[in-house]
Amino acid sequence: MYPDPRFVTRVTTLGAGPIGGGWAAHFLARGYDVTAYIHSEAEVPALMSVIDTAWISLTALGLAPGASRDKLRITTDLADSVKTAQFIQESAPERLEIKQALYKKLGDLAPRDCVIASSTSGLMMTQIQAECMTPQRTVIGHPFNPPYLLPLVEVVGGKGTEPEAVAWAVEFYRIAGKAPLAMKKEIPGFVATRLQEALWREALHMVASGEATPDDIDNALMNGPAPRMAVQGQCMAFHVACGEGGMATNLDQFGPALKWPWTRLDAPELTQELRDRMVDGCNDIAAGRHFEEMAATRDREIVAVLNAIREARR
Amino acid sequence: MYPDPRFVTRVTTLGAGPIGGGWAAHFLARGYDVTAYIHSEAEVPALMSVIDTAWISLTALGLAPGASRDKLRITTDLADSVKTAQFIQESAPERLEIKQALYKKLGDLAPRDCVIASSTSGLMMTQIQAECMTPQRTVIGHPFNPPYLLPLVEVVGGKGTEPEAVAWAVEFYRIAGKAPLAMKKEIPGFVATRLQEALWREALHMVASGEATPDDIDNALMNGPAPRMAVQGQCMAFHVACGEGGMATNLDQFGPALKWPWTRLDAPELTQELRDRMVDGCNDIAAGRHFEEMAATRDREIVAVLNAIREARR
Repeated sequence: MYPDPRFVTRVTTLGAGPIGGGWAAHFLARGYDVTAYIHSEAEVPALMSVIDTAWISLTALGLAPGASRDKLRITTDLADSVKTAQFIQESAPERLEIKQALYKKLGDLAPRDCVIASSTSGLMMTQIQAECMTPQRTVIGHPFNPPYLLPLVEVVGGKGTEPEAVAWAVEFYRIAGKAPLAMKKEIPGFVATRLQEALWREALHMVASGEATPDDIDNALMNGPAPRMAVQGQCMAFHVACGEGGMATNLDQFGPALKWPWTRLDAPELTQELRDRMVDGCNDIAAGRHFEEMAATRDREIVAVLNAIREARR
Repeated sequence: MYPDPRFVTRVTTLGAGPIGGGWAAHFLARGYDVTAYIHSEAEVPALMSVIDTAWISLTALGLAPGASRDKLRITTDLADSVKTAQFIQESAPERLEIKQALYKKLGDLAPRDCVIASSTSGLMMTQIQAECMTPQRTVIGHPFNPPYLLPLVEVVGGKGTEPEAVAWAVEFYRIAGKAPLAMKKEIPGFVATRLQEALWREALHMVASGEATPDDIDNALMNGPAPRMAVQGQCMAFHVACGEGGMATNLDQFGPALKWPWTRLDAPELTQELRDRMVDGCNDIAAGRHFEEMAATRDREIVAVLNAIREARR
């Protein structure tokens, strides 16, 4: 039913803000023909400013063959912007009534085999698609700011979405140079924002109680876990740090510490099932690699990150 | 009372594990004479293995003039290892009774003007120094794993520590090539571990509820917030993302979202005082720079990080 994602050449973006403009820039950099719908012509300078800013970074990362800002068409006609679209990335304001009204229109205007993805970070697709007559092809495609730089796109459908549309979006984003994460369930905040929000809440707790300033928080992150987390997620960081025993050692030895007041935020009960999921999951990622090999890889990549930051700041 | 930290040439490390060995490697790489105390000669291979592994990365980051592994002396005699030390970095096992007994001995054996820093991540200095007769010069100097690569060292004293010792340790670590963070208060988990633990607890919640696998968690971090967090902490990420309005806009507009279930972990009350601390703190960091300048810097550095990771994985 959906077109082969490898042969998509036309993408429509909706929205002139940093997210909508960032998406337009990303798709242009990957060589697509991009139609950008904006609310009014007064938004053209803002849109072009975002694209021009993003283009500097996208060029430094490497443009796809045939990529050009000349492939951008801007329109204020919604019907015209989507009528021949092969994929739509919607980045309208984060207000439910606006999104619902928009999806009601898009449901009729966009071709039936065109997947529509929302950049929303705070709303759920089940809500957004409530008034859409063709909800089966509507999905969340949540980027991380800045959207033209960070590869993550979290993909999940609503109750009215068909699984094929989610699978198609995941495949399309991958072809389009992103790192899609197909979510298991529709939950508020998705995965990355939930992790970031947990960290953010503890940061606010520390500032509220006078234990740290915003400068302390930022320095702690930049000089501590972040350069490692950029090359190795937190699960594998613990897995590899615990040597031969891996995640099993981490949970069996440090599990009791989950009850310690190392943050104000409550940990889940460490059941046998949770333990096994964490251990099995890390072993799956390791895929037979020895921890020393993974530690050496981590170190080489952290060195590259630290040297790159130092060089960029020179 | 304490020696000029610029003229320190002799450092003693205690412990043969990944942290103790990592510290020895770091100080060797910065050109110091290092005496490494280990519990028994059987630990020599483990210690040398850590140092040799770390040396690969330290060399890639750049060694200080005069740095050499030949400046390492290993001993199993505690008194001998500390008697002429100018700084002691202790990385003994994370058990309170072991640390307390050790600091009782060190309190007598180490010169009175020699600061003793503990690598502990889970204990507080007020507890560790309880049986030490010279607690005034004992501090926490908590590194982040791997300690030879990540610059952060969180520094804080216990109830018996004098402020001069904390200030000295901060200055010494800076001279020794680390990024010290002088903590405002003695709290469990310090700053960076608390932030990481908050994130970790939400990660465990998601795995427990079947919302994400460890692979999802790690991919979300590596492709999402982490490359940005490596060059810009979370406070400034929000500050810059909100344009002209900065952190004030973030809190005034998105403050209500702190009550939303974007994580299972409770946020603090967003009082006027907390709001002002966050806003003032971000303005202090910005130091007059316009948000567009900071966004451009962020982008240039993220590009460097992403390209560095890609190059390292080739």
